[in-house]
Amino acid sequence: MNAVATELVLKAAELSAEVRQPFPASRKIHVEGPQGVRVPMREIALAPTRSGDDLLPNAPVTVYDTSGPYTDPDARIDLLVGLPALRAGWIAARGDSEDLDGPSSGFGRLRAEDARTAHLRFQHRRAPRRARAGGNVSQMHYARRGIVTPEMEFIAIRENARLAELRERYEQAGYLRRMHAGQPFGARLPAEVTAEFVRAEVAAGRAIIPANINHPELEPMVIGRNFRVKINANIGNSAVTSGIAEEVEKLVWACRWGADTVMDLSTGKHIHETREWILRNSPVPIGTVPIYQALEKVGGKAEELTWEIFRDTLVEQAEQGVDYFTIHAGVLLRYIPMTAERTTGIVSRGGSIMAKWCLAHHRENFLYTHFEEICELMKAYDVSFSLGDGLRPGCIADANDAAQFGELHTLGELTRVAWKHDVQVMIEGPGHVPMQLIRENMEEELRHCFEAPFYTLGPLTTDIAPGYDHITSAIGAAQIGWHGCAMLCYVTPKEHLGLPDKQDVRDGIITYKLAAHAADLAKGLPGAQVRDNALSKARFEFRWEDQFNLSLDPDKAREFHDQTLPQEGAKLAHFCSMCGPHFCSMKITQDVRDYAAKIGADEATALEAGMAEKAEQFRQAGGEVYRER
Amino acid sequence: MNAVATELVLKAAELSAEVRQPFPASRKIHVEGPQGVRVPMREIALAPTRSGDDLLPNAPVTVYDTSGPYTDPDARIDLLVGLPALRAGWIAARGDSEDLDGPSSGFGRLRAEDARTAHLRFQHRRAPRRARAGGNVSQMHYARRGIVTPEMEFIAIRENARLAELRERYEQAGYLRRMHAGQPFGARLPAEVTAEFVRAEVAAGRAIIPANINHPELEPMVIGRNFRVKINANIGNSAVTSGIAEEVEKLVWACRWGADTVMDLSTGKHIHETREWILRNSPVPIGTVPIYQALEKVGGKAEELTWEIFRDTLVEQAEQGVDYFTIHAGVLLRYIPMTAERTTGIVSRGGSIMAKWCLAHHRENFLYTHFEEICELMKAYDVSFSLGDGLRPGCIADANDAAQFGELHTLGELTRVAWKHDVQVMIEGPGHVPMQLIRENMEEELRHCFEAPFYTLGPLTTDIAPGYDHITSAIGAAQIGWHGCAMLCYVTPKEHLGLPDKQDVRDGIITYKLAAHAADLAKGLPGAQVRDNALSKARFEFRWEDQFNLSLDPDKAREFHDQTLPQEGAKLAHFCSMCGPHFCSMKITQDVRDYAAKIGADEATALEAGMAEKAEQFRQAGGEVYRER
Repeated sequence: MNAVATELVLKAAELSAEVRQPFPASRKIHVEGPQGVRVPMREIALAPTRSGDDLLPNAPVTVYDTSGPYTDPDARIDLLVGLPALRAGWIAARGDSEDLDGPSSGFGRLRAEDARTAHLRFQHRRAPRRARAGGNVSQMHYARRGIVTPEMEFIAIRENARLAELRERYEQAGYLRRMHAGQPFGARLPAEVTAEFVRAEVAAGRAIIPANINHPELEPMVIGRNFRVKINANIGNSAVTSGIAEEVEKLVWACRWGADTVMDLSTGKHIHETREWILRNSPVPIGTVPIYQALEKVGGKAEELTWEIFRDTLVEQAEQGVDYFTIHAGVLLRYIPMTAERTTGIVSRGGSIMAKWCLAHHRENFLYTHFEEICELMKAYDVSFSLGDGLRPGCIADANDAAQFGELHTLGELTRVAWKHDVQVMIEGPGHVPMQLIRENMEEELRHCFEAPFYTLGPLTTDIAPGYDHITSAIGAAQIGWHGCAMLCYVTPKEHLGLPDKQDVRDGIITYKLAAHAADLAKGLPGAQVRDNALSKARFEFRWEDQFNLSLDPDKAREFHDQTLPQEGAKLAHFCSMCGPHFCSMKITQDVRDYAAKIGADEATALEAGMAEKAEQFRQAGGEVYRER
Repeated sequence: MNAVATELVLKAAELSAEVRQPFPASRKIHVEGPQGVRVPMREIALAPTRSGDDLLPNAPVTVYDTSGPYTDPDARIDLLVGLPALRAGWIAARGDSEDLDGPSSGFGRLRAEDARTAHLRFQHRRAPRRARAGGNVSQMHYARRGIVTPEMEFIAIRENARLAELRERYEQAGYLRRMHAGQPFGARLPAEVTAEFVRAEVAAGRAIIPANINHPELEPMVIGRNFRVKINANIGNSAVTSGIAEEVEKLVWACRWGADTVMDLSTGKHIHETREWILRNSPVPIGTVPIYQALEKVGGKAEELTWEIFRDTLVEQAEQGVDYFTIHAGVLLRYIPMTAERTTGIVSRGGSIMAKWCLAHHRENFLYTHFEEICELMKAYDVSFSLGDGLRPGCIADANDAAQFGELHTLGELTRVAWKHDVQVMIEGPGHVPMQLIRENMEEELRHCFEAPFYTLGPLTTDIAPGYDHITSAIGAAQIGWHGCAMLCYVTPKEHLGLPDKQDVRDGIITYKLAAHAADLAKGLPGAQVRDNALSKARFEFRWEDQFNLSLDPDKAREFHDQTLPQEGAKLAHFCSMCGPHFCSMKITQDVRDYAAKIGADEATALEAGMAEKAEQFRQAGGEVYRER
């Protein structure tokens, strides 16, 4: 390794302290399951409730955890080596794939031997793995043959977050109080997720498990509307800014705050090398848009793209371990003229590349004409399709138009082709959609794509707030999540304006976590309300630290509180800064509750009678006030 | 004036430059109307579109403007004198009110003569004004007698924002392209708002015009579901922090960013004096919660509150010019025990004060028993009721419970009492509500409060994101606004954690402006989409400055853009930082559009044919792909 390499690697190896620090009052736990699975979760410890001289314990709350080993103080992290290959044994045990001698893509071989990029190269690369000739290693293929994989076992345990085990303790602590029925809009959320349920959902195409056999480091997760709503965060350098170390830091940062998957949208130099570092250190599935790299290979000239270059790029990335590919195979020639009169034309990068290619050659989209060949590749590595919405609307005016829905129908047709190959599919969606048109998007998708998981960007519900588009889009995201969207692609405050920095990534992720959680509550996901109830109980009882620790972003909550009342003592105080010591509504309410508790049934009746008397006086004085009930 | 006063006043008089700066590329215009009204609006100038060598002009966009004279470079602002009394002539001309010799509240008189607070006192106070004996000066009273007031004329012009006048120019510029039909959920939004329509809505109780005759400085506005959705911002000092100068600065700041009304929730020292400074300098209606001040008068002990002290407080504040009062008259004895088993009891400050008073005295809420007397006061000054939801849920678990809806029904009964007196009423609403229960809130309110305008806090759609509750609540606010809520009370990022500073106020307001606008779009408010379309057109044409200038927060948009690409030249460049110069989807799309424009109808048909041929090949190769349409 040369000096530059050492510098780079050291910088990368030294993740900032803030991305590795465990969450406050939290510990990493592992739940053991069948087939040797060991599922990481986060347990948040809470202080007891004071009741007179008694201390009543509050059950710790177990939450779904995307942060990977980075928040585990017992884990040894070495970015140079990568994360442990959690799934390697499971993959090998299936006996349907094999190690290759080296990359089978031309570009992959060139880069492996390129002296100019040697200093950037991840050193501990494993041999790529591929299905044995004619084989299919997709989770859908196993599911359809009735096989419950360790990945499915892992996911079932993960989705439940120990609800059944903890139900009694949660009940005692009051966390199950008034769990509202959801409005699931046709989703069927089981009381408890079983591995068999996961299998059946994947077999039916209603859920996917993005899990390339070349990404054994990932902690398996599922995307489907009968599970928790997931979120994706985009990272990636561009020609203008950002380097490898920065991207790896962003990856770990994104997982910390709750990204369920991460898309690497790099378009600048060293795409190949950056991706390798990201994959080897990522506990979450990684998605890419391969056409971006293919375009770089032809000097940015869309018309020079060829199927051969694209295919080689797919193989290159699949052998690195990318878990899902966005493929814009629905951008058909006949849809392109439909966009000419739009306010913002084609805003998807992939969509505009393919449109330009189609028009330049007067030929149909090669992603469409070669779709079956792509399927053959996908199943050899278990890469999932994320069928791209290249014609998604880029503004409110263009929402739900003929081009958008035309492409969606084509994506449905391609879904059937992929399923014929037992290849996993999700469908990408808009974009910019005013609220009254959101539901139509979800319904069209469910109908025309046969319930394949929907994966939307936002949608943004107005165009007039650049700088706040994480919020304009969270409004749409929460609603489409409620209506059945399985994964929400985050939008940061920098959308339309610039590249997100670390703080923007955090803002975008927390915004989308809360939107996804609001959707889970609205759908009636079993147990989703536990965390809300535990946090609100802590709030009511002035357990400030518990309130911070249960929140999606404990650091931010604490920081905001301390800006007004920085003294440590204030966190123990029975008042908050909104009201001051003499004027806290929660304090008064506690008095009321104590008082009400003292009132026996007889007295309550007397109160009612007194009220009735007063009401009678009022009725006589003012008339017309009461209507009969 | 003593030295302290000078210091204070100078500080107050010197509003920071940032609150007075006109918005970029914007000018204040005034639209003249009947009865001498002159309605301020903001006109945003846009650059022309380049088309080859031609420059095609883009019509300026006129937007609703809450910022008052502060953004008018021609206005002379002197906080010591206050804003011009825009409505004084209209009020006097009605001949139904008269100047008083001085404050008629005992407390008001005491404070006017108090030497200790002389240095804090606003000097240019007018004599208070009141209806002549037995009179009623409410806008509802005029409306019901068929009188169209100048306030109604003003509002009609304001709501339209010159849409009819500019329609042709907007059409030419493409701003009316694909205006989506709304889903109004029973709202009836006229194509053009007339003064008569405003009158009829106010007469029916479906809208209110908060406009105390002692607040002649305000620019009239309307709150009702058949108009634009409005937002409220809260300011106010507390025992813990914040002074007069800071509050006046916050007021002007709030108006700048888009607050349609402002509530002064001060609970600390000098409430009376702070309020006077705020009112004299406020172009928007001011609301208060009088029970807060009444409580201060009895040393913070709720049980020592009396009707007499409360009544005196109402008179004191009404004569200062407060435009609407939150009155928690629906907190009845019989509802209080219903809250004992809640997760967070009673979280409304006003609600908990009244609950404590009721229980301490074993008597019915004195706001309820004296409600008719309150009505008599309200109509003498035209103060509107904001009937407080003292029992609103403070967490997801407590949403839509018997206490909340019980109180709502009582608020409906009180609405009828107020209407009997021709007193204007709006109804306050929650709070914390998961998405699937939001619509029930709106429907219950419309049904049981007879379509009186609903005014909600959020609602927050999850409890687990303190530090981001402007967002958890904007998700709920946008939806309830769509369903018919007339005004949305903002929530800042500091909610539950601390007092908002200026940046929090800005964040909260912009968040609520975009939520209200999303609701206007979804309801189908005529012309609402013009700004979205104009902005998106600017975005597509790389008119960066126009994109910034049309946004709700031009400064933030520009700042974010400049963080990545600070060079002035980048704002003229035909690419954005997301993609870099070789890779901009919008640039490619422009190429596509140019190309598509060249294709004649014949060629398009040929393309279709080519496509069909390809499809046929695909069909033969892969089978099953196409379904017949």
